[in-house]
Amino acid sequence: MPVLPVNKQHQAAFQQVIDQKTKPLGALGALEALALQVALIQQTDTPQLTKPHVAVFAADHGLTAEGVSAYPADVTYQMVENFRAGGAAINVFCRQNGLQLVVCDVGVRGIFEENTPDFVKFKVAHGTQNMRHQPAMTTDEAEAAMDAGRLVVDGLHHRGCNILGFGEMGIGNTSSASLLMHRLLQLPLDQCVGRGTGLTDDQLIHKLAILTDVARRYESLTQPMDLLAAMGGFELAAIAGGMLRAAEYGMVILVDGFIATAALLVAHALEPAVLNYCVFTHQSDEAGHRLMLAHLNARPLLSLGLRLGEGTGCALAYPLVQAAVAMLNQMASFASAGVSVKE
Amino acid sequence: MPVLPVNKQHQAAFQQVIDQKTKPLGALGALEALALQVALIQQTDTPQLTKPHVAVFAADHGLTAEGVSAYPADVTYQMVENFRAGGAAINVFCRQNGLQLVVCDVGVRGIFEENTPDFVKFKVAHGTQNMRHQPAMTTDEAEAAMDAGRLVVDGLHHRGCNILGFGEMGIGNTSSASLLMHRLLQLPLDQCVGRGTGLTDDQLIHKLAILTDVARRYESLTQPMDLLAAMGGFELAAIAGGMLRAAEYGMVILVDGFIATAALLVAHALEPAVLNYCVFTHQSDEAGHRLMLAHLNARPLLSLGLRLGEGTGCALAYPLVQAAVAMLNQMASFASAGVSVKE
Repeated sequence: MPVLPVNKQHQAAFQQVIDQKTKPLGALGALEALALQVALIQQTDTPQLTKPHVAVFAADHGLTAEGVSAYPADVTYQMVENFRAGGAAINVFCRQNGLQLVVCDVGVRGIFEENTPDFVKFKVAHGTQNMRHQPAMTTDEAEAAMDAGRLVVDGLHHRGCNILGFGEMGIGNTSSASLLMHRLLQLPLDQCVGRGTGLTDDQLIHKLAILTDVARRYESLTQPMDLLAAMGGFELAAIAGGMLRAAEYGMVILVDGFIATAALLVAHALEPAVLNYCVFTHQSDEAGHRLMLAHLNARPLLSLGLRLGEGTGCALAYPLVQAAVAMLNQMASFASAGVSVKE
Repeated sequence: MPVLPVNKQHQAAFQQVIDQKTKPLGALGALEALALQVALIQQTDTPQLTKPHVAVFAADHGLTAEGVSAYPADVTYQMVENFRAGGAAINVFCRQNGLQLVVCDVGVRGIFEENTPDFVKFKVAHGTQNMRHQPAMTTDEAEAAMDAGRLVVDGLHHRGCNILGFGEMGIGNTSSASLLMHRLLQLPLDQCVGRGTGLTDDQLIHKLAILTDVARRYESLTQPMDLLAAMGGFELAAIAGGMLRAAEYGMVILVDGFIATAALLVAHALEPAVLNYCVFTHQSDEAGHRLMLAHLNARPLLSLGLRLGEGTGCALAYPLVQAAVAMLNQMASFASAGVSVKE
C-alpha cells in the first residue's frame, strides 16, 4: 500500500482558523505549524489525539563483538526487563504524559519467560549477524522485521491509536544508524559516527575504524532494502516498517532521536510521503542527528541534549502536540472573544 | 526578607542518585540539570511539585499614546476578559497541562464588574503615566505593584503551591522591558528593542525613536527601583515582587519570555540569589531575549519561536519539569533493575 501525501486542499482554511485565534499572528511559533500539520493529517480543523502510544522495538547486534559500544550487549535484554518492570526512563515519561507503552522483542538475544500485557514477541532471530563478516540480516529477515513493525502498528490502530512514537533499545545500534546515514545521505562516515552511549576518544576511533571496514564491504549496494539488510538492525527495520504502516493509516508519527531518524531515512527512501506524517520531537546530542534533520528539512520541537533513545523524546514532546491541538480546539477567536484586531 | 541561595551541601549526593539511574551518564541532558536544581531547591532527592500555578499580571501603559504597539491599548482589558472566560492561549495550555491560572489586575484601564474565582484585584492605578513626559510610576506605586505580586504569591503559597509561572498582559509592555534591559544590562538600546506583537519596519523605527527619547530622559537614574518606577509597568513590578517572594518561600519559579525575564532582571538586581529558583522555560522570538538569557547564563528548556507572553512558555514547559522530577522519583537504578554498568 503506498503512502499518500496529505491532501492540502483545506490548508488555507485551516491556517485562517489559526490566524483568527486571540494572539498576534504567528505568536505561537512552531506550535502553529504543528497544529496545521495535525489538521492536514486528520483533514479537520478540530483534530483529536486518541490513545497515544510509544512502541519500543528491541534487538541485539552481532557487531557488538567488535567492541563498538560502551555497554555490554547483555544490557539490551536487561533493559527490556527494565521496560517490562516499569523502571526505565520511557516508562516514567509515558506514565507522566499519559501515553501507553508497548515493547516488542524483534530480535533480542535470550528468551523472555513471562508475558506481560503490552509486551509483543516477534523475534526474527537472536540478534543480527556480525556485519563485519556477513550481512546483518538476510533479505527475508529484514522483511520479517519490517512486518513486525507493521503488525505492532496494526494492533495499535485497532485499539484506536492515532498518534504513535517509535523507540528502540539495542546495544550497538548507533553503528547501524551511522552506516545507513552514511550511505543514504552520502555523507562522509566520520560525520555520521558519534559516541553513542558514551565512548571515550580511543573507543570512538576504534568504532570509526570498524565502521569504515563495514562500509567498504557493502559499498556496491545501493538499494535501501539491501542497505538495511546488510548494515541495519531488526529494531531499525521494524521501526521503518512501522512508520510506513502508520503513515498508511494517517497516524501522526512521533520521531525520536538518532536511531529512529535513521530508520525514517530508510522509510523515506522507500516512500517519501511518509514525511508528511512525521513530527520531529527532539534534536539528539548524538553527533550526526543534526545533519539527518537538516537533510529532512525537519525542525525538532525539543533540543535538550538527550541521547537516550527508547522513544523518550517522543514521550517528552507529546504534551506540545496536545497543546497545539488544544489551541485549535479551545482557543477563542478575536470575534468570539470581542478582542480588537491589529491597528 | 532576603532571598537565600540554595544550600549545596547535598549536591554531590543528589547528582549520584541521578547518575545511578538506568541510562548512560548524562543521557537525559538538560532534564538532569533540571532535576538537580529542583532537588537543591527542595533539599531532597524525592522532590514533589504541588499545586502548580501560573499567575498573570495585567496592566496598561501610558506610553501607548505614542504609538509603540501594533495593537490598541483596549486589548489589555479585552484580553483579561478573555482570560476570565477561559479562551486565551494561557487558559488552554494551563488546562492541558494541569496548572491553575490566577489573573491579577494590577493596573488595567477600566473596571472589571464581576468577580470570578482566581481573579484578583490589586489595581494600583488605571495604567501608568506616559513615561515620555513623566515617570511611569511614583516610587510608592512601584512598591505597591511589587506588593501586589508578593500578596498573590502569599495566597498561592498558602494554597500549597510550590511551583509558579509568571505571565503578563499589557499592551505596550515590550517598551518597558526593552528600556529596563537597556539600563540594567548596559546594552545599546537597538539591541533591546523588537517588534513586540508585530510591528512593521516603519513602526519599529518609530518605537526605537520614542524609546531613545525616554531613555535619555532618565539617563541619570541608576538604582533598580528608580529605573523600575521611571520606565517599568505595574505588571513588571508585580512580577518582580512576586518572584522575590516566591524565592523567599523556596518555590520553583518558571520564567516566561521577554517581559517576564525583564522583570527578573529587576528582581535579580535587588536579590541575586533569586536565580537559584528560576527555571527558564523558553527562548522568545522577541529580539533581545537571547541577550537577556545569555546575561543570566540561562539555558531555556524550549525554543519554539513563541512571542505571546501570558506565561504560555511556563505552561508549555511545565511537563518537562514534571518529567525531570518523575525521573528522580520513579526511575530504577542500575542496581535495582539488575542492569550491567559500562564496561
